[in-house]
Amino acid sequence: MGGSIFGKLFTITTFGESHGKGIGVIIDGCPAGIDINVDFIQSELRRRRPGQSAIVTQRKENDEVQILSGIFEGFATGSPIAMLIPNDDQKSGDYSHIKDSYRPSHADYTFEVKYGHRDYRGGGRSSARETAARVAAGAVAKLFLNHFGITINAWVSQVGAIGMPYPPNNIDYGLIESNDVRCPDPKLADEMIQLIKQIRKDGDTIGGSVTCNITGVPVGLGEPVFDKLHAELGKAILSINACKAFEYGSGFDGITMKGSEHNDSFFANDDGNIATKTNFSGGIQGGISNGMDIYFRAAFKPVATIIPAQDSVDKFGQTTIITGKGRHDPCVVPRAVPIVESMAALVLADFMLRNKVVKL
Amino acid sequence: MGGSIFGKLFTITTFGESHGKGIGVIIDGCPAGIDINVDFIQSELRRRRPGQSAIVTQRKENDEVQILSGIFEGFATGSPIAMLIPNDDQKSGDYSHIKDSYRPSHADYTFEVKYGHRDYRGGGRSSARETAARVAAGAVAKLFLNHFGITINAWVSQVGAIGMPYPPNNIDYGLIESNDVRCPDPKLADEMIQLIKQIRKDGDTIGGSVTCNITGVPVGLGEPVFDKLHAELGKAILSINACKAFEYGSGFDGITMKGSEHNDSFFANDDGNIATKTNFSGGIQGGISNGMDIYFRAAFKPVATIIPAQDSVDKFGQTTIITGKGRHDPCVVPRAVPIVESMAALVLADFMLRNKVVKL
Amino acid sequence: MGGSIFGKLFTITTFGESHGKGIGVIIDGCPAGIDINVDFIQSELRRRRPGQSAIVTQRKENDEVQILSGIFEGFATGSPIAMLIPNDDQKSGDYSHIKDSYRPSHADYTFEVKYGHRDYRGGGRSSARETAARVAAGAVAKLFLNHFGITINAWVSQVGAIGMPYPPNNIDYGLIESNDVRCPDPKLADEMIQLIKQIRKDGDTIGGSVTCNITGVPVGLGEPVFDKLHAELGKAILSINACKAFEYGSGFDGITMKGSEHNDSFFANDDGNIATKTNFSGGIQGGISNGMDIYFRAAFKPVATIIPAQDSVDKFGQTTIITGKGRHDPCVVPRAVPIVESMAALVLADFMLRNKVVKL
Amino acid sequence: MGGSIFGKLFTITTFGESHGKGIGVIIDGCPAGIDINVDFIQSELRRRRPGQSAIVTQRKENDEVQILSGIFEGFATGSPIAMLIPNDDQKSGDYSHIKDSYRPSHADYTFEVKYGHRDYRGGGRSSARETAARVAAGAVAKLFLNHFGITINAWVSQVGAIGMPYPPNNIDYGLIESNDVRCPDPKLADEMIQLIKQIRKDGDTIGGSVTCNITGVPVGLGEPVFDKLHAELGKAILSINACKAFEYGSGFDGITMKGSEHNDSFFANDDGNIATKTNFSGGIQGGISNGMDIYFRAAFKPVATIIPAQDSVDKFGQTTIITGKGRHDPCVVPRAVPIVESMAALVLADFMLRNKVVKL
Repeated sequence: MGGSIFGKLFTITTFGESHGKGIGVIIDGCPAGIDINVDFIQSELRRRRPGQSAIVTQRKENDEVQILSGIFEGFATGSPIAMLIPNDDQKSGDYSHIKDSYRPSHADYTFEVKYGHRDYRGGGRSSARETAARVAAGAVAKLFLNHFGITINAWVSQVGAIGMPYPPNNIDYGLIESNDVRCPDPKLADEMIQLIKQIRKDGDTIGGSVTCNITGVPVGLGEPVFDKLHAELGKAILSINACKAFEYGSGFDGITMKGSEHNDSFFANDDGNIATKTNFSGGIQGGISNGMDIYFRAAFKPVATIIPAQDSVDKFGQTTIITGKGRHDPCVVPRAVPIVESMAALVLADFMLRNKVVKL
Repeated sequence: MGGSIFGKLFTITTFGESHGKGIGVIIDGCPAGIDINVDFIQSELRRRRPGQSAIVTQRKENDEVQILSGIFEGFATGSPIAMLIPNDDQKSGDYSHIKDSYRPSHADYTFEVKYGHRDYRGGGRSSARETAARVAAGAVAKLFLNHFGITINAWVSQVGAIGMPYPPNNIDYGLIESNDVRCPDPKLADEMIQLIKQIRKDGDTIGGSVTCNITGVPVGLGEPVFDKLHAELGKAILSINACKAFEYGSGFDGITMKGSEHNDSFFANDDGNIATKTNFSGGIQGGISNGMDIYFRAAFKPVATIIPAQDSVDKFGQTTIITGKGRHDPCVVPRAVPIVESMAALVLADFMLRNKVVKL
Repeated sequence: MGGSIFGKLFTITTFGESHGKGIGVIIDGCPAGIDINVDFIQSELRRRRPGQSAIVTQRKENDEVQILSGIFEGFATGSPIAMLIPNDDQKSGDYSHIKDSYRPSHADYTFEVKYGHRDYRGGGRSSARETAARVAAGAVAKLFLNHFGITINAWVSQVGAIGMPYPPNNIDYGLIESNDVRCPDPKLADEMIQLIKQIRKDGDTIGGSVTCNITGVPVGLGEPVFDKLHAELGKAILSINACKAFEYGSGFDGITMKGSEHNDSFFANDDGNIATKTNFSGGIQGGISNGMDIYFRAAFKPVATIIPAQDSVDKFGQTTIITGKGRHDPCVVPRAVPIVESMAALVLADFMLRNKVVKL
Repeated sequence: MGGSIFGKLFTITTFGESHGKGIGVIIDGCPAGIDINVDFIQSELRRRRPGQSAIVTQRKENDEVQILSGIFEGFATGSPIAMLIPNDDQKSGDYSHIKDSYRPSHADYTFEVKYGHRDYRGGGRSSARETAARVAAGAVAKLFLNHFGITINAWVSQVGAIGMPYPPNNIDYGLIESNDVRCPDPKLADEMIQLIKQIRKDGDTIGGSVTCNITGVPVGLGEPVFDKLHAELGKAILSINACKAFEYGSGFDGITMKGSEHNDSFFANDDGNIATKTNFSGGIQGGISNGMDIYFRAAFKPVATIIPAQDSVDKFGQTTIITGKGRHDPCVVPRAVPIVESMAALVLADFMLRNKVVKL
């Protein structure tokens, strides 16, 4: 029960289903005085929007955000900020064929058993449409983080077998939005787009990964022993639909490394600040940011909705055949980029506030 | 601030440093009536204890648990269960050499900046000694889960380059505790042990991975959209010292798979229960358990304490040399096995309670 | 920061200001399967609505509730229930005279200092309009409590010096809604109404009290030692605008009683259930409901907005004169009745859920 | 379930029963750098200790506090502070007569039904012995508040019918500890002491009240709309054993006042600070401190343990007779004074931290 509230001080509560009136979020704890640029929120939502390019779902949603409260004369008042994104495209008739059946690797079966009463239209609450609320809230978190010079950039690092190396190296963030797949390597981007188009033609889907880098984080964010910075980042990212894995810093590669290779030597840089020569720690030591770049990677499985017929069962335990139709994403990662950034922003905003109370 | 409280209903609060009076935990929310077998708690602590074998740290700690409250006539009363594990081996003198210096890839620097006032003896709160409290609490969680037939088994799946395949397949859980490294493949276990002994001889350390499988989980655990079962598992596991990555189900392999390969077909098994033919979902769909085995893998970096001299800086920004001494683990994973199980048990216990309130 | 979230399992997050787009609430944790009667929610809102009678503020608000999510085919789905009550009557021009001045005993000064950036229109977030969200959420909580036979009745027990005895005795709940002031004693109700009309004529305001009785509560609600049932009730009621005091059971009268008078003897009643002969405990012992009626009383101060000129200061520290105008309540208690019931319902709903997880 | 955790940022988790190993608390969130004076903690515990005078229970407990963690070189480290107060006086044999019976107006019956498995020795977790942990934690909170010049004084304002006026006026705090009953009016103190001695001779008990005043609170503490400063104070105080009522500022007297009498006019005082001429608001407006003194009063019922025989029932529903024996308080308020102060300190410490995060 519950589960739609995230964050301790910069707290969001989200609501909404794919085929209800809309999707929305309340931010409780946004500091007063932040300049809330609604155009920026809207531009972030456009990065997540369906129908934005030829390689994503063609479902039509304008995703126009309405600010219901918490902002006065353009600034946050310190009171809850409520945002509503009405649903435009509610073709409920499309979904009667899955009312009583469980689509493989969707949440139909688990929701049915857990809640008894399921909104079967387009996945209801389990639809990835829910992530629009995360992006709206994440945009506000980014505006807050801007005050401190913190910048978050995510990009598609892999689609199927086509991938960039991890850890990331020499990324030109300016290229991320230059192509539909949001990969900063133009050549790989082309290959990824071709692959996705082929996959869509087959009525199939494909997995991918998103990598994220965060700069300008002050030393001190993260609250050991349980609320370590990377642990909350991990939870935040893993809670995104279709995410199956999370690694930060050396990640899985750390398994095969020796301490003498992995340890990041400290040195005092030219401004007298302490830095590390390498950054296998991924900017986090002991669960607390150390001032170096924070980077991580997240794996996304292939979307579960496919066109070919699949074996399944219905709620009466009878064998049935599920055939996909309609408008789904052949690969989730291009639209996942702003969602990953948003969840990272929400975690950092929360820890910025939690860190403010540490010292006398 | 804060950060030493974990769980929403089965809630633990931990305390203690490596060189203080002891380590401990309060469990607030353990249901009344559970038979609390203190011998079992003690046996779990022995699996984590230093000095248990030739391939772990030789630091001496008996780790004898004292029950301070919450148990009456052998059963949980529903009141907070407090457990204290006194520290035996407090050689504080050992640590004066690092009082003012920052050991590479330790938490010395980040704690110093965050809190200003640092307990520099053996890492203080950032020491892995803190995990003893997790294991004591996890043992109680396991006793609770036993009532529902839920079983958790973790094992060492990789040390350096020596590893077992993931996803796990045909694991003989009975073999896990048969060797010092806790790998259920005896041949690989031997190789791992030899590698760790060599690494120790070099004064170096090596990374590794732990894989975990959970059986008997009822359908319905997990609370979307943020408190998805795998998201909380991810946070719990990532909060363990030295953990760098988490994957569940298909994990990173899901990146290269197609939906038509990855989707787990439903069928009704012989008892009429719904199951899936494959289990790339890792027992979790839409963030909720589907009744299949839950499995995941965690990566651990090499321990930061090594013997060879390393460049670093002190708190005055001056260059310094850190030389390791003393008793550290050459590889953390053999002792991480019960910690991983404990954190998984705490997450499941919490979700068992949260799921009880879902239906009328 | 924060403060607009209430409840641990049956959790509400509210938003909205008096002169923004609207007021609203998200309920996260309402169990699936509850029949959500929107007409009932609307009828509860009408009990709180401005303009409902001659003795309340004549501000015009229709308070029409819109359900945005969480309900499907008339039943709660287990997903967040979002409700929006648009604001109709936004005469922002009315408030420019208090933009820079602090009205005595309002929240103008404290909000200005705390947040820096204040929505001065009609009190913004500190306006009692915020309580509409509580009533909408409380109505859903009542629908949930109906499943268990729990009934909550509040009424006006005092206005100025005109009052009913406390503890309550022989209340005819059917009479509460029979008069504008919501007092179940028709003769006293008349006197109260006359008093309020006279007070309004004087441009002044007057205090009052609301008493509440709850029947049908099962034994076991409340979570010692901090989250005792009466402690959470107290917090919930005290959080209502203008509330200054809370007593339950014997309350302040308990000060002058002896243990031999105050103790409630147990006996087994005719159905074999355990009951108490007297009920000075107010249905709660050790912070846990004992199955007897729960009753409490809340004191409300006179509304701060009055017509006569008052001395004050402005934000520049200069002496100024505040003159009231417009539409305010001469006495808050008639409209406070459904708010008190709603907060009590939210507390009980939360504890019903928390109690479900106690036993194996 | 749960209920032994209090506070959002300055968070305490308590444990312990009257006849277990001891009572204790973990503070998670105490800012690093605070000078922790253990003698002060001990002196506060002595104010609550049994056997301190002729008018309290003669049960023997030394209440010696042990610091288990979180303090290094005399200062808080920012890590959890754990404190243990071992139980000395465990005469469990005394309690077999109530093992199966329910003492009137105690928590025996409600604990039995709620948890099934009850520690019947001296009330177990429901014993007021639990409040020792609150006092130890409250002492640390006071040390924190000292840094900001905040001072909390509580005193006995009434025993039976012998009482001081409310709101408090011209209290000489220096006299509070000058007599056993902790009443700052020496003449009334004598009368109260005589009354309590007579009540004890009769084997009976008597109620009382405690009033509290807080000075030096900065403007801005409290988090509307639910976590208003007085609402959290109310919860905190009501959660103390035997507390039946809470009022702040004008309290119940506010019922009979007019707005024109009750409103507190603002003025700029000689230092240019804004103050109010009267203080019926009790230092809190809109749920936020306004810089004036905060004051409140709490009512405590007569202790339920009395010597004369009382009718009751046992767990089998059979009529039985309960006869008191042993060592109980004839009146709870003298020992409640430091507990009230402690709970107030914990609330203020929490809100000091929460307020730190409000502004950029």
